[in-house]
Amino acid sequence: MKLEVVTIGTELLLGQILDTNAAELGRALAAAGVEVVRHSSVADRPETIRAAVAEALDRTGFVITTGGLGPTRDDMTKREVAELLGKPLELDAAVLRSLEERFRRLGRPMPAVNRTQAEVPAGATVLPNPRGTAPGLWVEDARGRVVVMLPGVPSEMRGLLADEVLPRLAARTSGTVVRSRTVRTTGIAESALAERVGAIEESIAPLTLAYLPSTDGVELRATAWSLREDEAERRLAAVVAQLRDRAGEHSYGEDGTDLAATVLEALRRRRARLAVAESCTGGLLGARITAVPGASDVFVGGVIAYDDDVKTAALSVPSELIRAHGAVSEEVVLAMTLGAQQRFAVEAALAITGIAGPTGGTAEKPVGTVWLAARFGNEARALKRVFPGDRNEIRARSAQAALDLLRRLLADKP
Amino acid sequence: MKLEVVTIGTELLLGQILDTNAAELGRALAAAGVEVVRHSSVADRPETIRAAVAEALDRTGFVITTGGLGPTRDDMTKREVAELLGKPLELDAAVLRSLEERFRRLGRPMPAVNRTQAEVPAGATVLPNPRGTAPGLWVEDARGRVVVMLPGVPSEMRGLLADEVLPRLAARTSGTVVRSRTVRTTGIAESALAERVGAIEESIAPLTLAYLPSTDGVELRATAWSLREDEAERRLAAVVAQLRDRAGEHSYGEDGTDLAATVLEALRRRRARLAVAESCTGGLLGARITAVPGASDVFVGGVIAYDDDVKTAALSVPSELIRAHGAVSEEVVLAMTLGAQQRFAVEAALAITGIAGPTGGTAEKPVGTVWLAARFGNEARALKRVFPGDRNEIRARSAQAALDLLRRLLADKP
Repeated sequence: MKLEVVTIGTELLLGQILDTNAAELGRALAAAGVEVVRHSSVADRPETIRAAVAEALDRTGFVITTGGLGPTRDDMTKREVAELLGKPLELDAAVLRSLEERFRRLGRPMPAVNRTQAEVPAGATVLPNPRGTAPGLWVEDARGRVVVMLPGVPSEMRGLLADEVLPRLAARTSGTVVRSRTVRTTGIAESALAERVGAIEESIAPLTLAYLPSTDGVELRATAWSLREDEAERRLAAVVAQLRDRAGEHSYGEDGTDLAATVLEALRRRRARLAVAESCTGGLLGARITAVPGASDVFVGGVIAYDDDVKTAALSVPSELIRAHGAVSEEVVLAMTLGAQQRFAVEAALAITGIAGPTGGTAEKPVGTVWLAARFGNEARALKRVFPGDRNEIRARSAQAALDLLRRLLADKP
Repeated sequence: MKLEVVTIGTELLLGQILDTNAAELGRALAAAGVEVVRHSSVADRPETIRAAVAEALDRTGFVITTGGLGPTRDDMTKREVAELLGKPLELDAAVLRSLEERFRRLGRPMPAVNRTQAEVPAGATVLPNPRGTAPGLWVEDARGRVVVMLPGVPSEMRGLLADEVLPRLAARTSGTVVRSRTVRTTGIAESALAERVGAIEESIAPLTLAYLPSTDGVELRATAWSLREDEAERRLAAVVAQLRDRAGEHSYGEDGTDLAATVLEALRRRRARLAVAESCTGGLLGARITAVPGASDVFVGGVIAYDDDVKTAALSVPSELIRAHGAVSEEVVLAMTLGAQQRFAVEAALAITGIAGPTGGTAEKPVGTVWLAARFGNEARALKRVFPGDRNEIRARSAQAALDLLRRLLADKP
């Protein structure tokens, strides 16, 4: 089953709010086996709303709209859709009663303007909305084409979708689903990963493959379209295994896996504790680690050694080392992990020192140059990277790369 | 001037990522006086991409696309747009050289697959993208219709938009602008702020006012629509002054102001240096401070004292204090700032200790309970807050509230 989504609201086109409704509809509908083939956003203008809904209806015969169902002048979705489908608006006595009841409960008189919310296109199914004043509407025309109108307030949209829309759609779909699974990789560029994975697109059809790069690395996302659930799961499992195999040591997990959580779990299994020493990331690595609920049984803390004097005083990095090699060097980053390990009396330590920019780069050490080190017991590894991107991206990539260095060190020590 | 935006990527329709590019384009284009009349999202499928761009081009004659310019097989925007406009793809020697140069700088061989990124539609203007491998493309057909293709990576899209697209659009627009200005507040709830601001909506028309809450606080955004630039600026300045006056001590800046940058600047003026001591935020406060370029002349570093033993050993918080009052207490947070101030020999220190959840709450100290402290010279202030939200929201609100505590302490000491 295919449909289109039309989200309505001038604030969406002006970018003043993010269109979370579109994303939420996409997720929930895919999970229910419904494919959203296009999503459009239009402003609160009658002719634009009508044109967008009409075109979407011509393409797929099924449209879900959000927004424009409120009581004020800029709410015009219902009127336009009713005219488009040739259905007059009629006052619905049950909706009016429930509106009046709602205002009575809130202890306020119902403003006259809210009366228009009780008008519905002739023959429409009213979808009750206990979370707000605007009910959802399910309208079908003589040719069997459907427009479902939902309010734009995210919590109301979400409630109506789950309670009223998805169950009705389930009755129409033929048992197929749209489902995705993801292999997460890090430490390898998109193009290099593509060479490793090779041209598997044809061999996995009708599943599709997408490369999604971010500062955490590149996600490989396989999607099964319009298959039965068991068939989709079976084929996705095979593709995921193939992708993990080809991504090799760069793959650290699947789907929602967070690298920090993975590393914490690997340490927890060894009853080991972790401390950090951060220069250019300034606390970002610690923040990532402690974003994981329950981090406290593994993570004890760390030193933010932004100033070189702090590296010396709090991490016992010899000042001659900094003078001889510079603060961004293999020698210093290794001394930082050693200092963190000893000061906090832990088995595992991570350190980062680098040049996040925008200034501070040199010909020899350009902006983006970062030294990372991981230490576990008496084994340590250091790695130099030159990261692309702006200050924040370089810092985010550094934290991820440090975690990955420790993940690999632990993986090699069974 | 009117145009349409088409964002391309299956992950958008599946709701796996939020379409921040569409919102960012909407904001930036409105500010430049360009109206986005429709935004569409389509999956990575050749026929759908071509249909969406063709229809948008028929309606407005000007389309901006994002996504589908990478080196892998799911990147097909360039090919489809080239065919739609009847322009063959040709290898651009300059783009190829800059790609090869980029890989050389990163010290990696260029994978063969990246070569396709040097192909451009015949006659296209190449928009250089120093932040990534895919350049933007500006293609005009014989009828004067334009398609601008931008990469989907948000930082690359943003850079190309500012550096290459907006200046070219400015040359085409006709005098009026859509412009917004923002007053940033923190430490006050949306409804309490609304009571302070009062019902000024009618008096500021045709400007509009929106309340935008986030973990940083509530932004008050005034927007002027379709006015000449000088008139828009004049009226916005008056409204901003009025809003700042009513928000009072809760207002810390305007527009893009970051509270961390404001605090760093206030300390810099006093030639004072800053250190932090973080428990539940685990480095997030340090990360926020060091996200500000040039933080190093003020910020020296800090201690992430996640474990109570670290509070004692690294910050000299007496263990009896923790036993008597608990780690989340006024006594301990004040001792943490004192420890940070003394250990790092700085004038200013901030400390945070709290219960970010999801577990660890008690009846007396529920999840969200956070003690914050700021110290400057021999003056210190502590503040208890009980923040709403999940673990990440509580941590983000804590970092913002700690910064605001120091901002106010400094503001009261001229």
